[in-house]
Amino acid sequence: MANGSRCAACRQLRRRCTSDCIFLPYFPPNDPQRFSVVHKIFGANNAGKMLKQVEEYKRGDVAESLYYEAQCRVEDPVYGCVGIITLLQQEIYNFESQLAKIEAQIRLLKAQGVATPTL
Amino acid sequence: MANGSRCAACRQLRRRCTSDCIFLPYFPPNDPQRFSVVHKIFGANNAGKMLKQVEEYKRGDVAESLYYEAQCRVEDPVYGCVGIITLLQQEIYNFESQLAKIEAQIRLLKAQGVATPTL
Repeated sequence: MANGSRCAACRQLRRRCTSDCIFLPYFPPNDPQRFSVVHKIFGANNAGKMLKQVEEYKRGDVAESLYYEAQCRVEDPVYGCVGIITLLQQEIYNFESQLAKIEAQIRLLKAQGVATPTL
Repeated sequence: MANGSRCAACRQLRRRCTSDCIFLPYFPPNDPQRFSVVHKIFGANNAGKMLKQVEEYKRGDVAESLYYEAQCRVEDPVYGCVGIITLLQQEIYNFESQLAKIEAQIRLLKAQGVATPTL
């Protein structure tokens, strides 16, 4: 394969890119940063193993989720995307509290039989 | 350091564990699976780099979040903990819909001046 069409992984790793390269379909040469981030966090070998261990039709999603996770870790070196999970769980807790309050107000409203409650 | 007190990382990598080993405080020998999972997903070198690049007092959280992420990836090789983020976002969307419905019902209730609404 000509140099011009090597995938982003083979370019960065300075190696030949064969037509059966595991990275080729998911790390195109026009987006070198995508592979670079995955390489930095997971390493090329581990990322390659994770792609190979699932059926071919799922590999696009593996590459996408590895890229997302790796970006999170670069942005937040301490918590990575676990920080996002914590934030979302907090948001859900807030929603639950909000719902519980509204439901309590509705119960009160029903009990009082007030026509124009101040909710 | 005696073999018996090598950290889980140095045990698995079959190397000497020095008192300044980056893994020693976060991967104790009595929990080999903890390091094993992090090693499988991120690789020992990358995990070591990620620990070293933050201040010492934050390293416990780095080790914990790496372990959580790695476990997620082992359980869900396609989406890892990005799958959890998607689920939580869906849950938040459902809460938002639920709240919007309840608020619409309350507005209706106020407008109708109904004492005992069927909510």
